[in-house]
Amino acid sequence: TTMCNSCVGGATTMELYEQLTAQGDKVRSLKTAKADKADVDAAIQLLLKLKVDYKEVTGQDYKAGCPPSGTAVSNDRQSENGGEEDTVDPWNVATNSAKGVDYDKLIVRFGSSKIDQELVDRIEKVSGQKPHRFLRRGIFFSHRDMNQVLDAYEKQKSFYLYTGRGPSSQAMHVGHLIPFVFTKWLQDVFDIPLVIQLTDDEKYLWKDLSLEDCHRFAEENAKDIIACGFDVNKTFIFSDLDYMGSSPEFYRNVVKVQKHVTFNQVKGIFGFSDSDCIGKISFPAIQAAPAFSSSFPQIFKGRKDVQCLIPCAIDQDPYFRMTRDVAPRIGYPKPALLHSTFFPALQGAQTKMSASDANSSIFLTDTPKQIKNKVNKHAFSGGKDTIEEHREQGGNPDIDVAFMYLTFFMEDDEQLEKIRQDYTSGILLTGELKKMLIETLQPMITAHQENRKNVTDEMVKQFMTPRPLNFNF
Amino acid sequence: TTMCNSCVGGATTMELYEQLTAQGDKVRSLKTAKADKADVDAAIQLLLKLKVDYKEVTGQDYKAGCPPSGTAVSNDRQSENGGEEDTVDPWNVATNSAKGVDYDKLIVRFGSSKIDQELVDRIEKVSGQKPHRFLRRGIFFSHRDMNQVLDAYEKQKSFYLYTGRGPSSQAMHVGHLIPFVFTKWLQDVFDIPLVIQLTDDEKYLWKDLSLEDCHRFAEENAKDIIACGFDVNKTFIFSDLDYMGSSPEFYRNVVKVQKHVTFNQVKGIFGFSDSDCIGKISFPAIQAAPAFSSSFPQIFKGRKDVQCLIPCAIDQDPYFRMTRDVAPRIGYPKPALLHSTFFPALQGAQTKMSASDANSSIFLTDTPKQIKNKVNKHAFSGGKDTIEEHREQGGNPDIDVAFMYLTFFMEDDEQLEKIRQDYTSGILLTGELKKMLIETLQPMITAHQENRKNVTDEMVKQFMTPRPLNFNF
Repeated sequence: TTMCNSCVGGATTMELYEQLTAQGDKVRSLKTAKADKADVDAAIQLLLKLKVDYKEVTGQDYKAGCPPSGTAVSNDRQSENGGEEDTVDPWNVATNSAKGVDYDKLIVRFGSSKIDQELVDRIEKVSGQKPHRFLRRGIFFSHRDMNQVLDAYEKQKSFYLYTGRGPSSQAMHVGHLIPFVFTKWLQDVFDIPLVIQLTDDEKYLWKDLSLEDCHRFAEENAKDIIACGFDVNKTFIFSDLDYMGSSPEFYRNVVKVQKHVTFNQVKGIFGFSDSDCIGKISFPAIQAAPAFSSSFPQIFKGRKDVQCLIPCAIDQDPYFRMTRDVAPRIGYPKPALLHSTFFPALQGAQTKMSASDANSSIFLTDTPKQIKNKVNKHAFSGGKDTIEEHREQGGNPDIDVAFMYLTFFMEDDEQLEKIRQDYTSGILLTGELKKMLIETLQPMITAHQENRKNVTDEMVKQFMTPRPLNFNF
Repeated sequence: TTMCNSCVGGATTMELYEQLTAQGDKVRSLKTAKADKADVDAAIQLLLKLKVDYKEVTGQDYKAGCPPSGTAVSNDRQSENGGEEDTVDPWNVATNSAKGVDYDKLIVRFGSSKIDQELVDRIEKVSGQKPHRFLRRGIFFSHRDMNQVLDAYEKQKSFYLYTGRGPSSQAMHVGHLIPFVFTKWLQDVFDIPLVIQLTDDEKYLWKDLSLEDCHRFAEENAKDIIACGFDVNKTFIFSDLDYMGSSPEFYRNVVKVQKHVTFNQVKGIFGFSDSDCIGKISFPAIQAAPAFSSSFPQIFKGRKDVQCLIPCAIDQDPYFRMTRDVAPRIGYPKPALLHSTFFPALQGAQTKMSASDANSSIFLTDTPKQIKNKVNKHAFSGGKDTIEEHREQGGNPDIDVAFMYLTFFMEDDEQLEKIRQDYTSGILLTGELKKMLIETLQPMITAHQENRKNVTDEMVKQFMTPRPLNFNF
């Protein structure tokens, strides 16, 4: 699998590098076009200035084709300050801290904004609804341009939601539902259209799978997504393999993005190399295109100015940094973003879960008995080794996976806070905490399985048919 | 514009380089996958052997990412033997010889086969028709696997034709018709389906044009193509921008090709660089996909084994070398090819014509008067400076553009041969030769204009609608 640390090293140096590369291209093309001397000189002046800035920030000379060493590809690199930094990109998430990734640092590195109490309050005010527990608890913790979306919404300017999933297997775990559960809440409170991309083409390009398998996984995953309760009149789910071949407008947007992104840029952003296939190299444009409303003329009646809001896990941000960079150059609004933290593996928050390891998480197909066994056997505990020690010193909820899972799924804030206090003080034992999680997960998963059973092939077909939705644009 | 000399330097060294790169990738992926030691060792042994071969052939050490220097990008390079080599690739054709490109050398460099008298005779025998003048006169001069196509055809196994055009402007010149005139003849004598790709997406990616312009040019060019007399029941013309968005099967084949070609490969074949946009980098897959019958399920009823024959100018061969390399790896037959020479500019055979220079060729919109003036004023002459000298020493038809054009357009072999002899001996003067060309071109262009006038928008729509053709597969 591709290893990419593009995110590591700071948005500033990488952005500076990309600016410099673009400026170098510009100078060259002006020269080739034999442009006015004044224009060429001005472009060269800016290029030199950027080079000085670059050296100042990175301590290195700019070299075309060589992104800042802070962003170089490496498995276990150290940041400039000597401490170890987390790895977060679309294919890899790794940290050495049991508490998980340091999200505050990630906000600084990615150049996004923190979702603070003020923004949560504002979402409550504008939507008129109590904020979702994912907002109340900082699970959606970072954003780009959310205030702008709310400003416009207050002036009756609507927007739409876009989220997605890479269907690499039939098996989805509870963590996969996070963006969908939250997106459903956003759709309910703002009453706006939603498009959901299933990147079956991406999975074909990255994995050793056939096109048929990837497409089948997309349809299977669609059932789990539909089971979250989406309204077929407000939601369009699409497989790339199908929709690319049924929407000339979608392909036109893909080509527009592909014209405005160079290999140098995707190399810097995603860590692609010369031995990657050309499909991977051009794929980011396909994840970018749904962020533009003109990709869905059947929904937006050809309007290209409807703002898009993308709720997603933070590891998908590189795609949308690229998308936001391209948007104004092709005449479209930049999509806004809401970023979530990662859902921890049962074994601990150091790693993202793996769909291929049945014991790394709770799967949507697990029986109540399997849930019980997995939680009891595999959920990493923040408790002490003996009851006596635990009673005396208390447990650590910050590294306890059972407690983390409850943070995601227990609705009652007061109950959750009491659990945290009791576990910290030692009143609550690990076994008791795990029992609470089991009793939260079992009915939730059973309900999901019931809902999924009621999703017919006919319903999947309906959701996945390009058609107008119940909105007037 | 992109400069590419991939073709220069020999099919052997480039193929060896690509084999080596692929083998290096294989060794790495085996190691990553922790494959059996025996398998890894075997792969390494082959890698080492290839490196020895490479050094032997090129005199250089293999270096990943650096294609053999014989294929390096450079504008005015010299071949190893000290002589200057022609430049031939999809974006550039250049030679220093007034006779034009040395096509025999090109056959050796590209690794294709010469269309010799034996093959021309065989085509006559199998088709039961007198060979087209383009075959009789070596204008289609090179092929790949044409004998295999004929073998199969004799056993009642049908095939289909695929050709295309990049619609970079509304203006087409007579040279642009060559592949279509010849393809029409092939279709008539073999009675087989034909698909014609208009690469409007390519022109958008390469030129400073809008998507709308490129798409409009595609439709305008389609009218000129239809005016060549194609049968709507046997011919499908498509714009990439439209067809990609209306055929999931076409996109599936594009993705399959994209998965099996690396950036290293397109860098070697097309000379792409890191500062090229990702659209250019992945485009070759879009020109490859129509060479597979499953891209047109409406025509071939889902069959993926119908052999494709591509008549095209030799500069398009890099796309199809790549296609033929990928085909067996994705379970499809390799397309066969028939290559034509270039149609010379009025100014001489050193360069390919330019659609942007009105005086570089005869355009399909020229009036009889314009034709007369252009030929008289701009057609490079192989005659002598004075009538006396000419009568005494004779002219040189090999470098005379009027004679070259007659080779393309005069049907009667005996008449053409008499002209050649009379011009060589000095009996025929340059003005008389030019008059013959003018009298050949004027009625031809007028007839084309008449035919084009009769092509309605409705007819264009019919040709460009995905639909079954009158063939049973």
